[in-house]
Amino acid sequence: MGSVHAANLARACPSAELIACYDRDPDVARAAAERYGAVAVPSVEDLLGIEGLDGLVIAAPTAAHAPLALAAAEAGLGTFVEKPIALDRRSTLQVVERFEAARLALQVGFNRRFDESVADVHRRVRAGELGPPYFLRISQRDMAPPRPEFLAGSGGIFLDMGIHDFDLARFLVGDVARVSAVGAALADPGLRDIGDFDTAVATLEFANGALGVVDLGRAAGYGYESSAELVGATATVRLETPPALAAEWLRAGEATRPLLRSYDRRYGPAFAAELEAFARALLDGTPVPVTGRDALAAFEVALAATRSCALGRPVSLDEVVE
Amino acid sequence: MGSVHAANLARACPSAELIACYDRDPDVARAAAERYGAVAVPSVEDLLGIEGLDGLVIAAPTAAHAPLALAAAEAGLGTFVEKPIALDRRSTLQVVERFEAARLALQVGFNRRFDESVADVHRRVRAGELGPPYFLRISQRDMAPPRPEFLAGSGGIFLDMGIHDFDLARFLVGDVARVSAVGAALADPGLRDIGDFDTAVATLEFANGALGVVDLGRAAGYGYESSAELVGATATVRLETPPALAAEWLRAGEATRPLLRSYDRRYGPAFAAELEAFARALLDGTPVPVTGRDALAAFEVALAATRSCALGRPVSLDEVVE
Amino acid sequence: MGSVHAANLARACPSAELIACYDRDPDVARAAAERYGAVAVPSVEDLLGIEGLDGLVIAAPTAAHAPLALAAAEAGLGTFVEKPIALDRRSTLQVVERFEAARLALQVGFNRRFDESVADVHRRVRAGELGPPYFLRISQRDMAPPRPEFLAGSGGIFLDMGIHDFDLARFLVGDVARVSAVGAALADPGLRDIGDFDTAVATLEFANGALGVVDLGRAAGYGYESSAELVGATATVRLETPPALAAEWLRAGEATRPLLRSYDRRYGPAFAAELEAFARALLDGTPVPVTGRDALAAFEVALAATRSCALGRPVSLDEVVE
Amino acid sequence: MGSVHAANLARACPSAELIACYDRDPDVARAAAERYGAVAVPSVEDLLGIEGLDGLVIAAPTAAHAPLALAAAEAGLGTFVEKPIALDRRSTLQVVERFEAARLALQVGFNRRFDESVADVHRRVRAGELGPPYFLRISQRDMAPPRPEFLAGSGGIFLDMGIHDFDLARFLVGDVARVSAVGAALADPGLRDIGDFDTAVATLEFANGALGVVDLGRAAGYGYESSAELVGATATVRLETPPALAAEWLRAGEATRPLLRSYDRRYGPAFAAELEAFARALLDGTPVPVTGRDALAAFEVALAATRSCALGRPVSLDEVVE
Repeated sequence: MGSVHAANLARACPSAELIACYDRDPDVARAAAERYGAVAVPSVEDLLGIEGLDGLVIAAPTAAHAPLALAAAEAGLGTFVEKPIALDRRSTLQVVERFEAARLALQVGFNRRFDESVADVHRRVRAGELGPPYFLRISQRDMAPPRPEFLAGSGGIFLDMGIHDFDLARFLVGDVARVSAVGAALADPGLRDIGDFDTAVATLEFANGALGVVDLGRAAGYGYESSAELVGATATVRLETPPALAAEWLRAGEATRPLLRSYDRRYGPAFAAELEAFARALLDGTPVPVTGRDALAAFEVALAATRSCALGRPVSLDEVVE
Repeated sequence: MGSVHAANLARACPSAELIACYDRDPDVARAAAERYGAVAVPSVEDLLGIEGLDGLVIAAPTAAHAPLALAAAEAGLGTFVEKPIALDRRSTLQVVERFEAARLALQVGFNRRFDESVADVHRRVRAGELGPPYFLRISQRDMAPPRPEFLAGSGGIFLDMGIHDFDLARFLVGDVARVSAVGAALADPGLRDIGDFDTAVATLEFANGALGVVDLGRAAGYGYESSAELVGATATVRLETPPALAAEWLRAGEATRPLLRSYDRRYGPAFAAELEAFARALLDGTPVPVTGRDALAAFEVALAATRSCALGRPVSLDEVVE
Repeated sequence: MGSVHAANLARACPSAELIACYDRDPDVARAAAERYGAVAVPSVEDLLGIEGLDGLVIAAPTAAHAPLALAAAEAGLGTFVEKPIALDRRSTLQVVERFEAARLALQVGFNRRFDESVADVHRRVRAGELGPPYFLRISQRDMAPPRPEFLAGSGGIFLDMGIHDFDLARFLVGDVARVSAVGAALADPGLRDIGDFDTAVATLEFANGALGVVDLGRAAGYGYESSAELVGATATVRLETPPALAAEWLRAGEATRPLLRSYDRRYGPAFAAELEAFARALLDGTPVPVTGRDALAAFEVALAATRSCALGRPVSLDEVVE
Repeated sequence: MGSVHAANLARACPSAELIACYDRDPDVARAAAERYGAVAVPSVEDLLGIEGLDGLVIAAPTAAHAPLALAAAEAGLGTFVEKPIALDRRSTLQVVERFEAARLALQVGFNRRFDESVADVHRRVRAGELGPPYFLRISQRDMAPPRPEFLAGSGGIFLDMGIHDFDLARFLVGDVARVSAVGAALADPGLRDIGDFDTAVATLEFANGALGVVDLGRAAGYGYESSAELVGATATVRLETPPALAAEWLRAGEATRPLLRSYDRRYGPAFAAELEAFARALLDGTPVPVTGRDALAAFEVALAATRSCALGRPVSLDEVVE
């Protein structure tokens, strides 16, 4: 994600300028800096010490998110951090509160909100076109599971994959009150050993009474899926996963269309849009469009889902907020 | 088509009753009669002599259509005849005029008009939802060419295949004033020897100024195609070829849906509907919904297209009405 | 449903013949009998006493299903009964066991299995095209809720609507081991008073380890929905709700297609196909394709879902089989 | 188009750098230069005199294309010019021959070839997946006609709009041998006064025997259309116009999806890709992917179509190459 964000800051965000790059591997930092006309710095301290910086974008292994964000807050920098902020609620809350106390901008990488289709649906739902929401379905599936090393530190399927969907659920419907979830390790039974799943379903009861269901799959095989359906009192809206190309091949009684294979093709422009929004908020001094509190709330839904699986019963959001 | 019509009359048309069957092959007539509780008769004379008949349905080789229809007119029977009435204009006109003179109903088998999607489009177009028409496109393609013996007596691609589309064009837009057509024998070059084509395009100039194009293919390979698109001043409507089943299979970056392989799956219910409409018209003494004049007009468009190919220039409808 | 089944038996099932009709309202029976050339009888006893009957088709208020079926078993008649057999498990089991003891055919009205798209998916899944199943999603939604009187005696959303989906789940994936469900009364809060819902989600854990989710809606507003998605190790298959017509209207930046408004347009041919299959089984002495045991199993899933909602925890199928 | 090309050169083409901008309106040039870190120059001479330039991109009123291109050739600059090179064949040929004589790169703005869906289809067709081509259909429609002032100098519907489709036809199928066209002024009858049309159909006979049809509309009302369908011996491929957003709204028996309203949303990325390809060809010294000869050939098809309309007969390509 680091290179994606660097490229977007340098090329696709009119309101942003890429000044400096840091990576644990200095060659990576140097290559990016050279490519986009920025400077490479040898340490986080050097990065934070650069004068005139307006903000920081953090894309690192999850474990490094919180320490880096806290350092950025210390340095007085508005910060964009990839999701999740941390793998535990305490650290997440700590980061959120530190930025709030310092009155610094903290935006979290829920890029889907910036997808033009999602944003348009949100706008129309907010405008009342759908009426009170009844039911939300979200499906997210990857073509193949990530490497085992990644999975081990991912926080589990609800936290790693589902958090995007839980944020989308909150974005479109509102706060979640209770979660009931089940998981299974079917494509890779080895996941059971680390308490994780490759197939999972979380049922959501929203505070406003609506129901929702999020289904997650790590090994759908056919491609990348990110779809949603929101049934309301006066309308229903569907967000489909678009085809990979606008071409369809027909032969011998069958028509075949190509499918998206990964999230970057679906949400590429949204990665640029979220950084542009972050840059604009910093420049204008307006609130960032996705806050640390949003990240905390989505984290809590993921936590409730994880716990519901472990306990074999519904878990209310109150329970995870010790 | 004979067995399709017999089955529909017996089972699918509430207003019709199948009384008697005739076929050149007595076994065929006997089998159908037995199946549907009708009587088999050994000759056309016997058929026409049955007392109390309200009407006759003719599904025979094209060459037999006109003689049978004339005999039916002689016998005073309202008649449904498959398209085309004949392979030449003179015979077609003769049949039409004979029924008109006798004030007898003559309906021709343009079954697509009775397809519920086509009928709904027609109704809405007539109601003005589309505004003045600008452009009509119709595509018709078969998966594989018919047997050579059939082709030899078919009257050519415009008369055999295109006539359905020319009737649809008249149904949706109105009378055709001029036709410009080209054809090619690409899948089966042998067709050139009999002056026929497997791929053809006819451009239509309608009397009301609108333009149209009909493309025909005998060897599309992928399946049966019957689609249309009508662009108007205030709306555009598309008639798609529906998939064969409501299921889609996804695997390895591709989604595959099954395609229709022949016209009967697309227009099966329309075959029943046209006979029900014929039966109702006979019973109620109201005009049949597709007349011999409609058949004559579609025939003339097909003739103009055929002639345009031969002459290498546009042919106006006036020219084919010697 | 009685008139649908009568029409299908008389007209659309080559292997069946409609002999006699009974209805509590003699006029209804007489009208149907007249229309289809059958006799109307004044009582169930008269119906069951007709000589030479091969089987009985029961379409009545749910409360009458079990008594009628038991009477039919007494009379030694193979029986087709609409779903559900009864609103309680004991009666359902009693009917199933009575037919088993008498070695009489008992088929239950899970018509969707006979839909050609569903049947084709089932055949291909059974042939191994999908590999081991991972996840099944089924959505069923009605445009508007039924009348309150109907709802009061319907057995609740899981038993009345969901039972079709639970049968489909068993048909495509296998037996269900545990169910976790939530429900809400959002469109009609009055449903709470009778302990029912208009929006509900049931999560299924199958005996083979796969997961599933069934979402139900009584007031989707936009139309009738019946769709499914089955993700497997080597393929995924989707069953879509087809559009109402093959036409799409385009105007001012929008394309609009008509949606199905009720189940009869979607599953009409399947109603005929299930009766034809029933008739063939009776004539050939082969097992019926959907048995009383299938009905009992789907009933138990619905019961577990209903109980899960009430208890606020997952309910295993063992628990509902007292 | 000038600002689109400037933005792409500066931001979206890794192989290009925007050095200088010229516009007849110095403010326009200055604004662009400022925005993208380039210099604004007060005259074409100044532009061509800049040292170290690798190439020139010309986006100007059509009448200025040829003079500017000839000046660029004079200056020894590889040149990208928007289509059409000129409104007459002589000027077009003069430009093409001048660049050939000077052995300078000349690329013409047929951006669709660089659309990833079109490019993928081309690659697969070239790889033989489709077999010999039988029939090509291309539809292009604008939502509303351009301003009358633009139309007056546009060269007519075949040259202004159709040239993109004629190039696509050559790209996918090959050279055109004969054209037969009709046109009508239905949305704006005033077009007749300047000999132009808002609705037109051109039938193509390719040198390899395949047939094709291009339909053009200036006032489709519903949105922007750019679709194609190529039927071949072993497969058929369809290029659809994708929806504007990935969302569909359902209500009261209808599903509505948003349509594209203009070409820039459909082909935006292709504008960047064509310039990146141009830059790479200049840097690598390889041939440009779309040549002046391609532009000349598409121009000649448009010319034949225009003449066919005027003469009321098919026109062979030989005829327009005086």
